[in-house]
Order: sequence, then C-alpha cells, then structure tokens
Amino acid sequence: MNLLLIAIACGVLAVIYGIITSQQVLRASPGNQRMVDIAAAIQEGAKAYLGRQYTTIAIVGVVVAVLVGIFLGITPAIAFVVGALLSGAAGYIGMNISVRANVRTAEAARTSLQGGLTTAFRAGAITGMLVAGLALLAIAGIFYVLLAMGADLADAGNRREIVTALTALAFGASLISIFARLGGGIFTKAADVGADLVGKVEAGIPEDDPRNPAVIADNVGDNVGDCAGMAADLFETYVVTVGATMVLTALLIRTGADDLLALMSLPLLIGGVCIITSIIGTYMVRLGKGGSIMGALYKGFWTTALLSVPALYLATTLALGDLGQVIGGPEAAGTDVGGAVAQQTGGFTGWDLFFCMLIGLAVTALLVWITEYYTGTNYRPVKSIAKASETGHGTNVIQGLAISLESTALPTIVICVAIIASYLLAGLIGIAFAATAMLALAGMVVALDAYGPVTDNAGGIAEMSGMEDEVRTRTDALDAVGNTTKAVTKGYAIGSAALAALVLFGAYTTDLREFAGELKIGEGGVDFSLSNPYVVVGLLLGALLPYLFGAMGMTAVGRAAGDVVLDVREQFRNNPGIMDGSSRPNYARTVDLVTKAAIKEMIIPSLLPVLTPIVVYFVIAAVAGREQGFAALGALLLGVIVSGLFVAISMTSGGGAWDNAKKYIEDGNYGGKGSEAHKAAVTGDTVGDPYKDTAGPAVNPMIKITNIVALLLLAALAGHVG
Amino acid sequence: MNLLLIAIACGVLAVIYGIITSQQVLRASPGNQRMVDIAAAIQEGAKAYLGRQYTTIAIVGVVVAVLVGIFLGITPAIAFVVGALLSGAAGYIGMNISVRANVRTAEAARTSLQGGLTTAFRAGAITGMLVAGLALLAIAGIFYVLLAMGADLADAGNRREIVTALTALAFGASLISIFARLGGGIFTKAADVGADLVGKVEAGIPEDDPRNPAVIADNVGDNVGDCAGMAADLFETYVVTVGATMVLTALLIRTGADDLLALMSLPLLIGGVCIITSIIGTYMVRLGKGGSIMGALYKGFWTTALLSVPALYLATTLALGDLGQVIGGPEAAGTDVGGAVAQQTGGFTGWDLFFCMLIGLAVTALLVWITEYYTGTNYRPVKSIAKASETGHGTNVIQGLAISLESTALPTIVICVAIIASYLLAGLIGIAFAATAMLALAGMVVALDAYGPVTDNAGGIAEMSGMEDEVRTRTDALDAVGNTTKAVTKGYAIGSAALAALVLFGAYTTDLREFAGELKIGEGGVDFSLSNPYVVVGLLLGALLPYLFGAMGMTAVGRAAGDVVLDVREQFRNNPGIMDGSSRPNYARTVDLVTKAAIKEMIIPSLLPVLTPIVVYFVIAAVAGREQGFAALGALLLGVIVSGLFVAISMTSGGGAWDNAKKYIEDGNYGGKGSEAHKAAVTGDTVGDPYKDTAGPAVNPMIKITNIVALLLLAALAGHVG
Repeated sequence: MNLLLIAIACGVLAVIYGIITSQQVLRASPGNQRMVDIAAAIQEGAKAYLGRQYTTIAIVGVVVAVLVGIFLGITPAIAFVVGALLSGAAGYIGMNISVRANVRTAEAARTSLQGGLTTAFRAGAITGMLVAGLALLAIAGIFYVLLAMGADLADAGNRREIVTALTALAFGASLISIFARLGGGIFTKAADVGADLVGKVEAGIPEDDPRNPAVIADNVGDNVGDCAGMAADLFETYVVTVGATMVLTALLIRTGADDLLALMSLPLLIGGVCIITSIIGTYMVRLGKGGSIMGALYKGFWTTALLSVPALYLATTLALGDLGQVIGGPEAAGTDVGGAVAQQTGGFTGWDLFFCMLIGLAVTALLVWITEYYTGTNYRPVKSIAKASETGHGTNVIQGLAISLESTALPTIVICVAIIASYLLAGLIGIAFAATAMLALAGMVVALDAYGPVTDNAGGIAEMSGMEDEVRTRTDALDAVGNTTKAVTKGYAIGSAALAALVLFGAYTTDLREFAGELKIGEGGVDFSLSNPYVVVGLLLGALLPYLFGAMGMTAVGRAAGDVVLDVREQFRNNPGIMDGSSRPNYARTVDLVTKAAIKEMIIPSLLPVLTPIVVYFVIAAVAGREQGFAALGALLLGVIVSGLFVAISMTSGGGAWDNAKKYIEDGNYGGKGSEAHKAAVTGDTVGDPYKDTAGPAVNPMIKITNIVALLLLAALAGHVG
Repeated sequence: MNLLLIAIACGVLAVIYGIITSQQVLRASPGNQRMVDIAAAIQEGAKAYLGRQYTTIAIVGVVVAVLVGIFLGITPAIAFVVGALLSGAAGYIGMNISVRANVRTAEAARTSLQGGLTTAFRAGAITGMLVAGLALLAIAGIFYVLLAMGADLADAGNRREIVTALTALAFGASLISIFARLGGGIFTKAADVGADLVGKVEAGIPEDDPRNPAVIADNVGDNVGDCAGMAADLFETYVVTVGATMVLTALLIRTGADDLLALMSLPLLIGGVCIITSIIGTYMVRLGKGGSIMGALYKGFWTTALLSVPALYLATTLALGDLGQVIGGPEAAGTDVGGAVAQQTGGFTGWDLFFCMLIGLAVTALLVWITEYYTGTNYRPVKSIAKASETGHGTNVIQGLAISLESTALPTIVICVAIIASYLLAGLIGIAFAATAMLALAGMVVALDAYGPVTDNAGGIAEMSGMEDEVRTRTDALDAVGNTTKAVTKGYAIGSAALAALVLFGAYTTDLREFAGELKIGEGGVDFSLSNPYVVVGLLLGALLPYLFGAMGMTAVGRAAGDVVLDVREQFRNNPGIMDGSSRPNYARTVDLVTKAAIKEMIIPSLLPVLTPIVVYFVIAAVAGREQGFAALGALLLGVIVSGLFVAISMTSGGGAWDNAKKYIEDGNYGGKGSEAHKAAVTGDTVGDPYKDTAGPAVNPMIKITNIVALLLLAALAGHVG
C-alpha cells in the first residue's frame, strides 16, 4: 500500500504542477483589446462546442453506465463513470488553458521567440501533466479504494473484482476518448478545410484573415480537436495500457498476495517516477545558441528520457527489492500465455522487467526520431513531396501517398523487434511493462503536442489582430515545429497501442481459460490457430474496421467542410461589407454550424468499434458455436491492430509530411508562396488534414475500445458480477 | 486419366478459339495509311518494351530455375520453366492481338458502335481464352506427364513429387507475373501521368493529341500494362488457385489412388467445362435495344455464369459419380486442418463440393456487382467524388480516398461469408473448390478486361489520325465501360486471392506436419496461435509488405512520370515545329525512356515478396528457434493477405471511381469539360492512375508469390528433392 501511496503522491504532484504553471501562464499579459476580443470569441466557441459534445457523449455514457451496472455490477459502473469523467476533464481543462495561452503566446512573441516558446510550451506542459497525473490518480485511486475496502489479492473472486473494475475504468476513458477524438477531429478539419477552400482558394485572402467568417471556427478547432481531443485520447491510452498491465499481472502471476501487490503497483510507480522526470524535463526547454525550436523541445524530451532510466531502476528496486530474484518461477511462468518464458528462463527477474522498460523507452525515442524523419522539413520525404509539387497537384498527392505508405515500415520493424525482445526477457508481462514504460513518458509527449494548437492559435490571433510581421514570423516558426510534434504523439500513441493490444489480447485469452466453465467452452478450448477459418474471418473483419472507420471520418470532414463553404459564400454574398473590411462577418454562425455537423457525424463511426465485437461474436456463435465465436472475436481484436497500425501511421505521418511540404515551399523553395508548386502543395495539405487529424488519430482509441468491449463481453457472458 | 484428357481437350479448344477468332479480327480492315502508321508505332513500342522486359526477367528466371533445380530437383525446375514461359506467352500473345485490334476497332467504329464493340471484345476474348486455356494446359499437362511417367498416387513419395512440381509451376507463373504486372504497370502509368501532366495541364492540348511526344508511349502502355501485365497476372492466379486446390487435395485426402485421381482431376475439369461456357458467352455480347455497352458485356458474362451451373454439376458427376457418396469419411476428414468437417459432417459429399462451387460463382457475381457500384458513373460513390470536385482538388482527393477506404467493406463481408459457408460444407477443401470455381470463369472475366486497352487505344488512334468526332464519341463510350471492367477484374483477382491464400496456408501447415521429422520440429509442433507473439510479429511484417510494395510502386510511377515531363518539355523547346504541327515529335525517344525507367524500377519491389519470407524465417529461427521461425513465416503469409486485400481493393476501386468521376464530369455534369470541377477531377484521375494500375493490381501476384516461396522453402529445408 505504501508503493501505491507514492504513486498517488506523484499524481498529486502533477496536478500541483498544473495549478502552479497555470497561474504563471495566466499572469502573463493577454495583449491589447483587439487580441482579447478575438481570444474571447475563440474561448466562447470552444466552450460551446465542448459543452455540446460532452452533453451528447453523456447521453451515450449514461446508457452504457447503466448497461455496465446491470451486466457487471455497481463497482465497475462507478469505475466506468470515473474513467469517463476524468477523460472528459483532461480534455476540458487542456482546452481551457489552451484558449487562454494562445493570446498570451502571441503577446509574448511580440518581445522574443523565447517568450512565445515558454508560454506555449508551459500551456502544453499543463495539459501533459494533467493527462498523466489524472490518469495515474484514476487507476491508483480505484485500486487503492478497492484494497482499502478489503479486497484480498489472495482471493480469486476479489482479484476478478479488481480486474473488472480496472477494465471498466479503461472502458469509460476509451468511450469518451473516441467521441472526443473523432468529434474534435471532424470539427477542426471541417473548419480548417472549409476556411482554406473558400478563403485561400476562392476569395484569395490569406490564412487567418479576419474577413473569413470561418476563421474563428478554424481556431476553435485547434483547441477542441488537437488539444482536448488529443488529451482525452492520451488519457485513455495511459489508463488502458497501465490498467492492462495490472490486469494481466493479476491474471497471470500466481504468487503470494504481497508479491502480487508489489508487482501490480509497479506500473503505477513507473508512471509516478516518470511524472517527476517529465516535470524536470519541462524546465529544460530553452532555445540554444542556434535558436532551433525543435532543439529546445528535444532538450526537454531527452532530459526526461535519460533521467527516466535511473528513475525506472529506482522504482523497480522499490517495488521488487532484489532485482535478481526470480518472480513466479517455472510453475507460475508456465501459466504465461505461450509458455516461452517457462521454457527459456524458468521465470523472469526484476532485471528482466527493468530491461523491458528500457525497451519501452527506446521504442519511444525511435518512434520520435522516425516520425521526425518522415515529417520534418530537413529530410528526403518532405522534400520529395515538395519537389513533386512542381509538376502539379496530381504528382504532389501521388508522392504524398507513396510517403504515407512507406512511413509505416520502420515503426513496424521497431515494434516487432520490441515485441520479440521484451517477450524473450519476460514473456507477455515483459511486453506489458515495455508498453507501460512507453506511456510513462506521456506527460512529456503530450506537453510537446499540446504546445502545437497554442502556437497555431497564436499565429491566427497575430494575423487577425494585425500584429507586426515580425511577430507573425515568430509564431509561424513555433507553429511549423508543432506539425512535427503533433505527428510524433500520434505515432507514439499508435505504437504503444500495438503493444497494448497484445497485452489486451493476452488478457482476453487468459480470461477465456479462466471462464471456460461458466462459458461452457468444450475441453479443446478455443482454437486461435491461424488455420481455423473463423480466425481468418475475424482477422479480416477486424482489419476492415479501421478502413470503414477512416472512410466515415474522411467523408464526414468532406461533408462538413462543404457546409462551411456554402455558409461562408452566403455570408460574402449577403454582406459585401465583409470583404472591404467595413463589416464584421458572423463568426458565431459558422462555429455553430460546424459544431452541429461534428456532433452529428461523430456518433455512428464511434459506435462502430463498440458494437462490432458484440455483433461478430453473436453471429459467428450462432452459425458455428460458442468456441468459434470466441475465436473469431479474438482474431477480430488482433485484426484491428494489424490493420489499424498501418492505417494510423500512414495517415498521421503522411498528413504531417504534406503539411510541412507546403511549409517547405512557403520557406522559399520551388518557387515559394503563390507559385504553382505552392498551389499543388496546398492541395496536398488539404488532403492530409483529415488524414492526420481526424481519421488517423481516432484509430488509436478505436483499437482499444474494440479490445475492451470484448473483455467486458466475456465478463458479462460469464455472468461475473463484480 | 480420361478426365484429364477431357480437361486437356477443353484447353486445346480454347487455343483453337483463340486462333480462329484472331483470324476473324485480323481479316478486318485496319483503316487508312495514317491509322496503320500510328498502329505500327504502337506495335513497335510495345514489342520493344516487352522484349526488353522479358529479357530482364529471363535473367532472374534462369537464376531462380537453377536454384530450384539445385534445392528441389530437375522436375520442379522444368515445371518452373513451363510456368514462366507460358505466363510470358499469355501476356505476349495478348499484347500482339491487342496492338492489331486497336486500329481495327477504330476503323469498325467508323461504321457502327456494334462494329467497334465486336472487334474490341473479340480481341479481349482471344486473350481471355488463351489465358484460361494455356493455364489449364500447363497444369493438366504437367499432371498428365507425371502420371504417364509412372507416378503413383498411392505412393507418398510420388504424391510429394507431384505436389512439388505443381508448386514450382505456380512459382514460375507468379514470378513472371509480378514482374510483368509491376513493370507494365509502371510503364503505362508513367507514360499516362507524364503525358497528361505535360500535355493537358502544361501545353493545354487534348488527350491523345499527336503533337504530344508521350502520346505513343501512353498507348503502348495500355498494351504492355493493362493487357500483357494483366494477362500474366490472371494466368498466375489461375495456375496457383487450381494448382493449390490439387495440392491440398493430395495432401489432405487419404483415400484410394483412383478416387484421389478423380478428386485431383475435378479442378481441371471445372476449368475445362467453364472454358466451354465462356466461349458460348462470348457470342452473346451484342448491343440490345437500349444500346448499353455494359449491358452487352453483361449478357456475355451472365450467360457464362448461368451456363456454368449445369456445367459444374456435369463435371462433378463425371468425376465423382454418385454425388451423395461421402468422400474420405470421418477418419480422412479428420486429417483436415481444423477438423471441423469431421466434427460436423463426418466427411463431405459431391453435393457439398458442388455447392462450394456455386458459392465461388456467387462470389464472382457479387464482386462484379459491388465493383460496378463503386466505379460506375450511375451510383453514389462516383457521383460523390464528382460533386466534391466542385470545391476543388483537395476535396476531390479527400472524397476519393474516403470512397477507396469504404469500397473494401462489402467485398470483405462477401469473402468472409464465402469462407464460412464453404468451410461448413467441406472444410478447407470446400474453400479451395469455391476458389477454383471462381477462377474457372477467368476466360470470360479476362475477356471483359482485355477489351479495355483495345478501346482505349482505338480512341487514341481515332484522335491522332484525325477521324470524325462521331467515331471518337463511339470509342469514348466503349472506353468508359472499360474503366469499370478493368476494376472488376482486379477485384475478382484479389478476391480469389483471399480464398487461394487460405488454401495455400492450409498447404503450408499440412506440409509442416508432414515434414515435422525432416525439419526437426519438436513434439508440440508449430504454435500458430494468435497468442504466440511470433505469430503477431509475422502478421505485422506480412501486413507491412503491401504497404512497402505500394510505396515503391507509387514512387516509381511518380519518378518515371517526372522523367517523361522533362523529356517532353525538352522536345517542345528544341523543336518548336511540334506545336504548330509542322514537325513530328520523336515518339520513340519517349517510349525508350519509359521502357528503361520501368525496367529499372520493377526489379527491387518484385524481389521484395520473394526474399522477405526467406529472411523472416531465418532471422526469427536464429533468434527463437526453428518452430517460431515457421510460426512467424506462416503468420507472414496470412498477414500479407489480411492487409493486401484491403490495400488492393481500396486502390483499384478508388482509382476506378476517380477515373469515372472525371468521365462523369466530362459528360456535362458539374460544369463539364474545362470547368474548375473538371480540373480537380483530372487531379483525382492522375492520383488514381498508379493506385489502380500499378500498385493495387500488383498486390495480387505479390500475395501468391510470398505464399509459394514459403511452400518451396519448406520443401527445400526438408531436403525433399522431387
């Protein structure tokens, strides 16, 4: 219990950091009245949208909470609500900081680049620490309360109660997250694409021009999509990954209650110490001599990553004592899925787990590096797209698609190597701890990401309030880096999802074995072999989900952006004063329109991953029996990740590359702004928008929710009431 | 042996049909001297390219043949060469007919639409029947020769010899096919995209304008890519599917030698009778009252499909006698992978097999219908892309990508239902026979497809030789239908590949069990369970292949098209007479440039699926032991299909939809030709080009070759010398 309290203390520390840093940010000047007015319009729009979004989600949430209560019991229902509320809170608070930091970043950039960077990064760090801190508090809190209420880890029924509660917590977080990610994603890109189409392309006015009625909606989008949606997503990823590691430990390791408690607390402790290293890292973000912004951000990231090595060692020692001691010897390890650990090592040691964590850190660092390669303006991929723009729109898009396909290769290989290496060290548990260590850096990674929408908004505010060109140049420089850091987070989230999905699949198969009696599964068990055609069918149907989901997301953006175009055209037509500056456009009308469209469009795709596992199980079970139903469902879970990994990485990296290819041309290459190449690059950027900010990132929560629904379905079918 | 002779006779009949129909086509008038000259230039270019392509492939082929000889023996090496030569021949002959029928179609279209349709479709039918006939002759011939030379099906060693020879035959066909598909695909799209970019976009001259130096290369591309490449691909698909069905039968069914011979001959007989129904179908292609070209082609297709029902019944009765008799009762069926047949039916009957064949026919019909829905100008998908073009290049591409993602859903569900239904009827053998029945219609399907490049060329010749607008209108109408039929074949090929891949995986696992001793596989066997991390790694690496392959193909087209643009620009600059029509461009120089580029670019991507299985096996075996190497390799095979199915369908359907959205606008919708919407649609079409004609279709042979290499690797490792 002491270990748990340490983890909880670290979570509280993150929240305190958030409060203190918020005050620092809010103390800064918000600039002149014009700037304050614009920022107020953005704040108002963002609040109105999030309010509406959460109200809609709440309806779904209440229904699901009641279903969870009926089928799984009252404790899981409470855990579900906690997960849902905190996931929503992480997004809401992040948005609230972001809409206040944007104008202050613009004002600070008036003085110096460092000033702008500090304000924007602090805002990002608040969101980052709150995401990590609240997620850690949620899991550790639920675990602590259950233990304090007398749950005994030595008792199988009690263990099951804890497992179900943690799974329900993850479900709550995931359910909110998929709606928030998708709804926010549709909002931000519908506004962005619509504003660009009708502003830049038709009316020939620059980006963020205050005459464009969609310009406030575009800026609202950054906050509700790239900030709030992303925060909810990473909160979910954190809760699911750390929770799944604890669940798997509880399911697989047969050891004394005290040892089990220590082992189950370790993931929380990992999260806790890395919050401390992340906080230290945030103070290292400073421009060096070269003035490289990416370099400044990297200083923070690398500080955190390197400090985490001794921190993880400390955490592991604290939890396990002697790292050389074998945990759950041959007999216990024999219960490990696949059994390789038992064969190879006769159990695993604390050292093995520590090395798995280092693998997790290495994967994070490599994914960051690979993403930067594919989306940074200094490397071949982005340059090749920029070059292809010279021959037109078509070749820009072809090369962008080629890069997006190619960008999946290195991350896949890194993930495969990580799977093998951590599995060889400590079996499935090893993979789980590698994933947990990855996620432990979430505070820092989210900080880098949430910095992006703040600078994006700051640029918009600078433009709209007519600040000097110098300021706009500074905010643009800050913003360009944001494109890469945004892509980095997505690659990191989906990469960790690949590991987490394996862990969840392990939990699923273990659950199946444990529930074999209740589920009336025959002696042969469930055949997950690839030579079982129901497994192949499950893989295919699972692989279909990201495609169908992506199609819906892309269509939704296209449709909503079209509505924006029509609305703006009408405003221009009915109010000619807008274009000559004598009259203000009706920003609120466009915001309202996008709000309604995004809410409407997010519902069906979000329910797809919730309902599909249930439908697939019941259909296949009806046709071929329970066992095959479970086999197809299990395969579905892996199918989603096998295909989702590629869909997500290709979309997010490709989109980032398109965006920066445009920026690379705007920096004066291949003819610069206004050239034919630039026009082609704008097309590529538009295509990349829903790729990287709507469909691609939403695949991550989609994968997790499919897996969690399957786990809860098992528990419900087995009649296990927590 | 009598059954075999019937199949061989049907193959010969197809060849005779080809010869007779060739004479009919060649008897038609090739038009005036100008037309003959243009056609001669296209012929020359196509021959030069294919000559160079086959020379290059021959080098790889000889090396591989020697390796096959060393590791597997002389008989497989001969079979490999036969497969390679006939695959090449199918493509070469198809191209030869196509480059002669094009000009005759243009000439016939001068008189009537029916005249043009008849000539073009006959040319397509020649290619179709030769593909099916030669493929059938190859498999039946090898089987017959081995039996005639004394191979005894009752003897396990002899059975193995036959299995290895058939696999090597398939390998030869696949190896040629992947090079031909990819090389031809790069050629055709590099020329097409390059010609469009520099002609339509830069110089503002119409498509197929004789002043464009790339125009002949573009027309050559239709013949070497869409005709020769496609023919080689379908030849390969036919050989692999029918061959794999025979191989699986030999491996799984334990029954008397006579019964086994009958069962192994049945796939050949199915192919044989469907050649007859296909030939009958070709005579039904006539315009009805409404003058619908698609309707005319459908008459032929539906005639063939419906006549095939009684024909398949006849074939099954001929081979098996009493259809009610149980084949390989419980004991034999117990050897079936998965064992479901034994549990459920205690073996399967002739009726079961017959119903599986009907499932194959139904899948073909459904895939045709779904593809038409997604690529035809009468339905929502194409119309939605056309509508999105109104708001610009970006929204056109976004909507096109959304449709391409969405288009995977229905085919996947159809395939999943087919897998389950045929598996419930007759286990893995049932899936194999469903796939064989699908492929049996290849003659007709290829006829519909090969018709496309002929009409495409006819349009080009009409334009270049300055024929009346009326003729061009007729050839355009013929060509528009070609876009849909081309997409249909690709959907059909990849759909059958999904079933065939399952069959090949079944052969792989069965081989593994049979070779367990030689391969020194431990008692537990190879663990193909999804909970084995090496299986997950294999799935991920397999899923990566289509992405990496697609990236290489797209990049190659972009690069080669860029070269074309530079070449044409230079010709315009150095020879100003070209634009005012006083001087002829140097067509041959551009053809030569594209030839070199395509040959160079096809090598590395084509070797990717050949080498990956070998590398993955040896690396994983070195890290985690032989068993895990085989597990990862097996999972790789399924990973390729699980991801390849989606990549291929999305690319081919999406590309077809983009192309026809452009045509839909050109028909006068959304502003018609020359409007802003049209420009955006041209961009979409350009993007769709390498999607649908280079990267997408080449995924099909890629999937098969990966599987076959794995099978041969097993045989080689087991030291089984045929």
